[in-house]
Amino acid sequence: MARVNPNYSKLKAGYLFPEIGRRVRAYQVAHPEQKVIRMGIGDVVLPIPEAVRIAMHQAVDEVGTLSGFRGYGPDLGYDFLREAIAKEYVSRGAQVHADEIFVSDGSKCDTGNIQELFAFDATIALTDPVYPVYVDTNVMAGRTGELGDNGQYAGLEYLPMNAANGFVPPLPKTSPEVIYLCSPNNPTGTVMTRAELTEWVNYAQKNKSIILFDSAYEAYIQDPSLPRSIYEIPGARKVAIEFRSFSKTAGFTGIRCAYTVIPLELEGVGPDGAPVSMHALWNRRHGTKFNGVSYPVQRGAEAVFSPEGKEQVRAMVGYYLENARLMRNGLIEMGFEVFGGTNAPYIWLKTPQGVDSWAFFDKLLQSVQVVGTPGAGFGPSGEGYFRLSAFALRETVHEALSRMSTQFKKK
Amino acid sequence: MARVNPNYSKLKAGYLFPEIGRRVRAYQVAHPEQKVIRMGIGDVVLPIPEAVRIAMHQAVDEVGTLSGFRGYGPDLGYDFLREAIAKEYVSRGAQVHADEIFVSDGSKCDTGNIQELFAFDATIALTDPVYPVYVDTNVMAGRTGELGDNGQYAGLEYLPMNAANGFVPPLPKTSPEVIYLCSPNNPTGTVMTRAELTEWVNYAQKNKSIILFDSAYEAYIQDPSLPRSIYEIPGARKVAIEFRSFSKTAGFTGIRCAYTVIPLELEGVGPDGAPVSMHALWNRRHGTKFNGVSYPVQRGAEAVFSPEGKEQVRAMVGYYLENARLMRNGLIEMGFEVFGGTNAPYIWLKTPQGVDSWAFFDKLLQSVQVVGTPGAGFGPSGEGYFRLSAFALRETVHEALSRMSTQFKKK
Repeated sequence: MARVNPNYSKLKAGYLFPEIGRRVRAYQVAHPEQKVIRMGIGDVVLPIPEAVRIAMHQAVDEVGTLSGFRGYGPDLGYDFLREAIAKEYVSRGAQVHADEIFVSDGSKCDTGNIQELFAFDATIALTDPVYPVYVDTNVMAGRTGELGDNGQYAGLEYLPMNAANGFVPPLPKTSPEVIYLCSPNNPTGTVMTRAELTEWVNYAQKNKSIILFDSAYEAYIQDPSLPRSIYEIPGARKVAIEFRSFSKTAGFTGIRCAYTVIPLELEGVGPDGAPVSMHALWNRRHGTKFNGVSYPVQRGAEAVFSPEGKEQVRAMVGYYLENARLMRNGLIEMGFEVFGGTNAPYIWLKTPQGVDSWAFFDKLLQSVQVVGTPGAGFGPSGEGYFRLSAFALRETVHEALSRMSTQFKKK
Repeated sequence: MARVNPNYSKLKAGYLFPEIGRRVRAYQVAHPEQKVIRMGIGDVVLPIPEAVRIAMHQAVDEVGTLSGFRGYGPDLGYDFLREAIAKEYVSRGAQVHADEIFVSDGSKCDTGNIQELFAFDATIALTDPVYPVYVDTNVMAGRTGELGDNGQYAGLEYLPMNAANGFVPPLPKTSPEVIYLCSPNNPTGTVMTRAELTEWVNYAQKNKSIILFDSAYEAYIQDPSLPRSIYEIPGARKVAIEFRSFSKTAGFTGIRCAYTVIPLELEGVGPDGAPVSMHALWNRRHGTKFNGVSYPVQRGAEAVFSPEGKEQVRAMVGYYLENARLMRNGLIEMGFEVFGGTNAPYIWLKTPQGVDSWAFFDKLLQSVQVVGTPGAGFGPSGEGYFRLSAFALRETVHEALSRMSTQFKKK
């Protein structure tokens, strides 16, 4: 009989978001009359920008004609898009070239697939709490042991982020080969300062580690002193891969486009001890396992960088950030201890004393029909915290706050 | 230093098609005045069907409104598309349910990623010649040794297909756990009969193997006696995963949509000896590493199954098949021994005595500026053969044949 990958059985019962979905569906079946407000999965709600829509229409028309038809695109993305992305980087003071950009259909895919480039026993460090995809894809690849009673997979180094350390992950103790970082952070909504990120880049240089830097939420950074890209930090090109997405920036969660930057000088080491270009490896992976992003989608993504697109995206990001501000204030008024939400679309709140994060999830769902994400779903250090997403309509935010305020009052 | 996956270094210098691209570019730089005809990569040239275009426009408009906006779709695909696909299967006598269909952005991705579900030392058999993605993704995963002088990776069982055996792959000798089959075949253009496929299904049942059946070209089957899906064969639901694509069927190479069928009763075996649902494993993989296909693309794919869409696709497939017929006849007239091309969009020709397939590639490129694909690029048994694709405009086919006829004459 065909033997399956034995590592899948190490995974917890379900990926976090399907589990939330199951609980919400069960509640809705039991209470069909209740209107549930979903602030759990970080999915956007505003329509795609007009500039994107116009560009996609044009592209669809183009491929509907003989002269304008385009078949297989370049595996790594069309030059028009890679150049627009590189130009944006350069305009913000980060040195990134068009041919270092790999266009893909999502950052979930990229951050999930990138581990394939490393040795099967490469040592990994990641923050805790963390986006579950980083952990689960390494479990599937066999880089971990079983899940322990402490909520940690054996063989990974967890870097705790909590109120006590101001959500700044401590430097690793084990000299890992690969380190996952995310800023603005999902789930905590906190952002690394330039000084903190510089410390990480210096650490990676000294320890010859590679940082996998997820900046899917960079568009939410308003404070000009905070770095939006790791490549704003000197030396980062030799130690970091960066992931970005149009999902939260431009409402692309259903349209699907993202990109990964691998600087040409970034190197790992091969079995013979010789340096290996990470760019060449990812190029080979893309060439073998990927066939590029839909052409109309790439045209839509390009339009995000047009003057109209930029303006429309800025308005959209501003809308969600105003939600975050209202949520922060409202939750603080209810007496919650609240983190994130100023340069990020996520609010990370401390659950009330003695209520764990899944219990708080169930309580919110059942008492006020508001769905958030239990912190424990993001790792053991997420226990005692709860994520609320600012990706909602204004009226939904007001309604959620109003419902919650009936249950929670400042003492 | 971060150690890289050591298996990438086992891969040959480049994936086949990039290598062809490099040779063609080098030739064009040296001879900018020459017009090269590309019949190498199997990329379509006709515009996307009108029904698809209309559906995509509508979907783009939809997500441009607040009420019609859709964010993250279901990881496995929208029900409207999964149901349309299942209905089509059922109408052709294959028992496939909507919830057994996994919508993706390409069969290259699916046939490349599927190996992740199997044990890292699972035994693999594949036909030779073969679509290189099947081989390379197993090399990258570490399931092979080095590439031998015979052109075979150690640890894989190669099933030779050649003129001597009528391009019917012999049953394996090693009782492999996983078997890759493709019909209509890429690259040979030959099609398995119902009796041949039945023999494979019976073999897999007896040996408890899983067949990975690539039927990306099923739309090109005109002979009603030939199976278009492995699920037309009794017992296949217990032994086979099937891959299909809109790429060659509906001109989607640049739009990106495909699907994989995993029957609910298909099982592998876990490390504890207990049966494991392959459907559940792929579901978990999709949930962790994939975020679904672009919504407008899924609406476009759905339109392929509308009455207008079906009619437009039929016309498109008919056009390419007429190309194939012209090519077969023309090449036979020139004295070539020709295979495939009657229920498939590929022509597989025997290179002239004493000319190997890359030499024939270079000769065709340099003497008549026609690009095809060297058989050796598909595996050692492809040596001495050459693939030409019928995905071209009619005038291009005529021009290619006319140019070739100046060089090749029946003896």
